[in-house]
Amino acid sequence: MRADIEKLMAQRNLDALLILGPSSANPPMYYVTEGAGLGKSVYLHRRGHAPHLIYNLMERDAAQATGLDCSAYPENDFPRFVEENGGDNPAAWAAFLAHVFKKNGVQGRVGVYGMQETARIYPILRRLGELPGVEVAEETGPRTLFEDARITKDAAEVDRVRQVGLGCYAAYDAMKAIIRAGHLVEGKLFGPDNAPVRIGTLREALLRTFAAHNVMEDHGSIIAQGKDGTAPHNHGTDSDILREGASIVVDIFPREPGGGYFFDITRMLCVGQATPRLREVYADVKEALLTALGSLKVGERCYGYQARTCDLFEAKGYATIRQDSRCTSGYVHGLGHGVGLDIHEAPSLGGSSVNPDVLAPGHLFTVEPGLYLPEDEVAVRLEDIVWIHPDGTPENITTYPYDLEVFPAG
Amino acid sequence: MRADIEKLMAQRNLDALLILGPSSANPPMYYVTEGAGLGKSVYLHRRGHAPHLIYNLMERDAAQATGLDCSAYPENDFPRFVEENGGDNPAAWAAFLAHVFKKNGVQGRVGVYGMQETARIYPILRRLGELPGVEVAEETGPRTLFEDARITKDAAEVDRVRQVGLGCYAAYDAMKAIIRAGHLVEGKLFGPDNAPVRIGTLREALLRTFAAHNVMEDHGSIIAQGKDGTAPHNHGTDSDILREGASIVVDIFPREPGGGYFFDITRMLCVGQATPRLREVYADVKEALLTALGSLKVGERCYGYQARTCDLFEAKGYATIRQDSRCTSGYVHGLGHGVGLDIHEAPSLGGSSVNPDVLAPGHLFTVEPGLYLPEDEVAVRLEDIVWIHPDGTPENITTYPYDLEVFPAG
Repeated sequence: MRADIEKLMAQRNLDALLILGPSSANPPMYYVTEGAGLGKSVYLHRRGHAPHLIYNLMERDAAQATGLDCSAYPENDFPRFVEENGGDNPAAWAAFLAHVFKKNGVQGRVGVYGMQETARIYPILRRLGELPGVEVAEETGPRTLFEDARITKDAAEVDRVRQVGLGCYAAYDAMKAIIRAGHLVEGKLFGPDNAPVRIGTLREALLRTFAAHNVMEDHGSIIAQGKDGTAPHNHGTDSDILREGASIVVDIFPREPGGGYFFDITRMLCVGQATPRLREVYADVKEALLTALGSLKVGERCYGYQARTCDLFEAKGYATIRQDSRCTSGYVHGLGHGVGLDIHEAPSLGGSSVNPDVLAPGHLFTVEPGLYLPEDEVAVRLEDIVWIHPDGTPENITTYPYDLEVFPAG
Repeated sequence: MRADIEKLMAQRNLDALLILGPSSANPPMYYVTEGAGLGKSVYLHRRGHAPHLIYNLMERDAAQATGLDCSAYPENDFPRFVEENGGDNPAAWAAFLAHVFKKNGVQGRVGVYGMQETARIYPILRRLGELPGVEVAEETGPRTLFEDARITKDAAEVDRVRQVGLGCYAAYDAMKAIIRAGHLVEGKLFGPDNAPVRIGTLREALLRTFAAHNVMEDHGSIIAQGKDGTAPHNHGTDSDILREGASIVVDIFPREPGGGYFFDITRMLCVGQATPRLREVYADVKEALLTALGSLKVGERCYGYQARTCDLFEAKGYATIRQDSRCTSGYVHGLGHGVGLDIHEAPSLGGSSVNPDVLAPGHLFTVEPGLYLPEDEVAVRLEDIVWIHPDGTPENITTYPYDLEVFPAG
């Protein structure tokens, strides 16, 4: 939580932290500015002192709305450092930041955060590290300070995630309505206008629904039929016509506009009656999901859930990634991941036995077993999000039903 | 252009380059993989050799579709390095990348690129820099290698940008249709259902239109009425009802889904008859735009256009950012910026006299003069995109008209 930042700085022996970049698609800056619509900004926090934000004058309204102590770039002589260094280059930025450090009394170990172009930030960090009395601190653990802070979500954050979920549920409803309005001809789905219903038809409905619910597709959505779904991150082929009985994995993960919180959910669609193999695989995945959901407990090692999911699938005769990291048939990924300002964040319910994560109050994470059978052209994944309440009670915040078959009218 | 990468490596005396991260919202990786839908990947290019891509097995379809020589993380022993280093931490990544360097014969000066969390990449780079025979090269100039490559766009890239523009034009049409369908009551706009028409009403129409055209709002859109518009990056207030005669700055910049190319355009809306002050300011901005557009010439310094725009506005009595970097009334920003896989990239038509950019064939950039008058609550900006053809001819690729007033039916 934001309130943990000072404590986490002390744990890391940081005298100050610096965040660079815009608030959008940049979790640390979004987090500390609570989603202010800021472009390239500078956030400076000396331990034990109020943070200071340096903003672009064109964004003064957004900067002032944060309530933070703040000043504009020109008030910090940014244009002079650009002039003196022959342009807006790493030397100009390093000189400007050195000036900002001096002006704000920053000394000692400084942690630097924010999404940056590697080739641009590295020479800046090298120069900052050469300033007298300044050490650029390294984050060498499995999680950075902000990943540690963000792992604990409060009810207000979870409510925002739930709200994004409503857009997902509406999108599934819209996709199902398209299937229900169609009719089958020789095992392929056609609409009321007799035009073929394609994966792209579903994707258009999904995007329209997201827009109507003011949620944003950030990394694309997975709508993957048959063989496509058996490579878990294959986004699907828009030109494919929907086929009776085939598995369609629909994994969607929109976020709030402005680079805010994500939701993440996977449901299955199948036009008409599923094949016997699909029904069987679906039942196995659903069993794994319900087993994991039913056993979540604060204090348990996250990897344990992955291990027990592998046990379950292996007992049913499927191969798993635990047996072979190169596995492409069976259960081929981790059981889940934290969700928040990143689509994948801490804790991890996957990895291997070295995964140090332990379930704790405030964690918000997916549970998403899946089976992928390229040889049968069948793939099934089901995914919910769970929040561990402050009192330790797990709540499945995903309220959409687990249907498989959707029957066309005709 | 992509074809320039080897040459740019030679200019920088790079023996190899490494790109880290996903293809989405990560211009270098998007650029070299031509927009493959890849998560966290590793791209390695030794000068004079074919590049190699390391991908997540779940993304094997997307990786193989790139046509690049490639291998999956497990084939490069990634899981072993995580095990040996106690988790997925910087030490594990550094050890893994050291292994990949060795396996692929990488030695000498290596440039590292890609959008990364600063606190995570810095310790990795420090460790790579300590490998025997390896130097992590610093990019100290105004542009990185990929910014240099990307500054020159080919016709295929520009066509993709034009296509995103169609979504913008449709969005303006949708917003104008809402205004035309309304009626004024005491200077405020109401719809056919007698509900007030708000900035949020326009924003919903914009998002629906973007979805229908398969373009994505990445950083939010600016729909800023009256005083809001006078802080150039204020996104506007959704609850505000549209007012007769007020300036509404509509600056929109969607991109292709999957983190691809941006468009960027600004047009004005005014419900009914504009105030005399707005008409006057609008005419001045339009004059500045047409003057700049009419004078673009290969070989000219980009900053010259900014300087001459300041001349024009100063002659009309407006203050400019050239006179005072803290200016908040008058002409308060640069004249334009490159557009591509970033919304702001090279060349810059702003900055100060140290801006080294010179107009050249292949450049694709905005021209966007504006005037901001908080004291009058009036703001006007107009923005087009220009491409310099390979033969040096500038083309204004923006084909949407410059209207100001839109008259409600009632």
